[in-house]
Amino acid sequence: MPYKYLTEVRGYELDSFGHVNNATYLNYTEQARWNILKESGFLNDFIKSGMFLVVVETTIRYVRELKMFDSIEITTTLKQEPPYLIFYQEIFNKTTNEKSAKAKTKTLLINKERITQDLPPELIHIIK
Amino acid sequence: MPYKYLTEVRGYELDSFGHVNNATYLNYTEQARWNILKESGFLNDFIKSGMFLVVVETTIRYVRELKMFDSIEITTTLKQEPPYLIFYQEIFNKTTNEKSAKAKTKTLLINKERITQDLPPELIHIIK
Amino acid sequence: MPYKYLTEVRGYELDSFGHVNNATYLNYTEQARWNILKESGFLNDFIKSGMFLVVVETTIRYVRELKMFDSIEITTTLKQEPPYLIFYQEIFNKTTNEKSAKAKTKTLLINKERITQDLPPELIHIIK
Amino acid sequence: MPYKYLTEVRGYELDSFGHVNNATYLNYTEQARWNILKESGFLNDFIKSGMFLVVVETTIRYVRELKMFDSIEITTTLKQEPPYLIFYQEIFNKTTNEKSAKAKTKTLLINKERITQDLPPELIHIIK
Repeated sequence: MPYKYLTEVRGYELDSFGHVNNATYLNYTEQARWNILKESGFLNDFIKSGMFLVVVETTIRYVRELKMFDSIEITTTLKQEPPYLIFYQEIFNKTTNEKSAKAKTKTLLINKERITQDLPPELIHIIK
Repeated sequence: MPYKYLTEVRGYELDSFGHVNNATYLNYTEQARWNILKESGFLNDFIKSGMFLVVVETTIRYVRELKMFDSIEITTTLKQEPPYLIFYQEIFNKTTNEKSAKAKTKTLLINKERITQDLPPELIHIIK
Repeated sequence: MPYKYLTEVRGYELDSFGHVNNATYLNYTEQARWNILKESGFLNDFIKSGMFLVVVETTIRYVRELKMFDSIEITTTLKQEPPYLIFYQEIFNKTTNEKSAKAKTKTLLINKERITQDLPPELIHIIK
Repeated sequence: MPYKYLTEVRGYELDSFGHVNNATYLNYTEQARWNILKESGFLNDFIKSGMFLVVVETTIRYVRELKMFDSIEITTTLKQEPPYLIFYQEIFNKTTNEKSAKAKTKTLLINKERITQDLPPELIHIIK
């Protein structure tokens, strides 16, 4: 079952063409990834531990533009392909009922010493 | 009665000190101003008209830092001091129950020809 | 011969890990694309015409992190694969002398009526 | 003699009105402040020390809009009004030869333990 994160487009995120700038879509997908950590109950420990998810590669396909106050839902599924943790995400526009974007983000979990590490036991359950 | 807009801090909005960057607070207050237009039912007409609110001056006092996923409420009251439209806004952190910032934003309403204009009849009621 | 655009990392672009956030790399590549239009002498006419480049797909591989004040050079080559205009870009860190990222951005040129169009004669020469 | 920092407006910084969004001006002034630390030769030590400059209050007056590729120079003078360190900054548009904005930023220097502290000896000379 995918994770879901709901938010809305903010007015200052529009660029000079009156729609959301393409880089901002990556902000949305990042926020949805953070939200998985939050829902896992492990966010604060994660931040304190000094671990972080390094983004190694992103591919994003833009399907439809987004406009101010569009209500968007980002759905996320995760897969482990050691050493990578891969996020498959879709941005769905609930205001227009259309898919807006589809992204694949390949990440590496790194510890404070910048060494690749496995998902800690506290986070294993986020893969489902 | 002030306007209220609710949103939450996004992870990518944190700067290298682990809290929301000071410029981002202005983004929040802008979004709350857009939301007044949205609630007025006049947002789309406003955008099509080519009118815009030019920010002439902002004063913001930062009271407390904001952290990832903090739930924030921006309250706004408006005053007309012709030719200016002035927004008094507060950012309140509902996660910590503390005031986070207080801002005053002086704006001018400009039409497509870049001439200062009065609030159109459709928007007069937003002053209350 | 590729296009080159030089800029430097700004302090507020660092995220809570102390390095440039991954979405910001797309900002850099966008700016380098705008700069091609600027160097073509056609930027102002382009903006007035209402044309725009819709980003259809981006793939970006992150090779090395970027830090505050790193001097970066974005090199760009373009290819036409009708109806697409494809940008191959690399971000090179001149401060550390290392490649930082490599991106491919697939775009469509759209006119004011949102119809795909060929490169106008004034821009044909940017493909070289 | 004021500090000077030179940069240019990036295309993605324009908002839906085709000019630089008002919050982005604060980004420019922040970057100019970082550059003072860089020129002092103390930037890396500063970052490692865990010290940071907390922005307590900002007042910014917007004089003229900024457009894509405008070349801007931010001049900064500092004053100590213990416990505050105050930055007076102007954004000057060298492309149009007009002043674009004027800002006053009141800051507190805080150490790792979040306690207000005086300028360390290595930084005293930045006040001139």
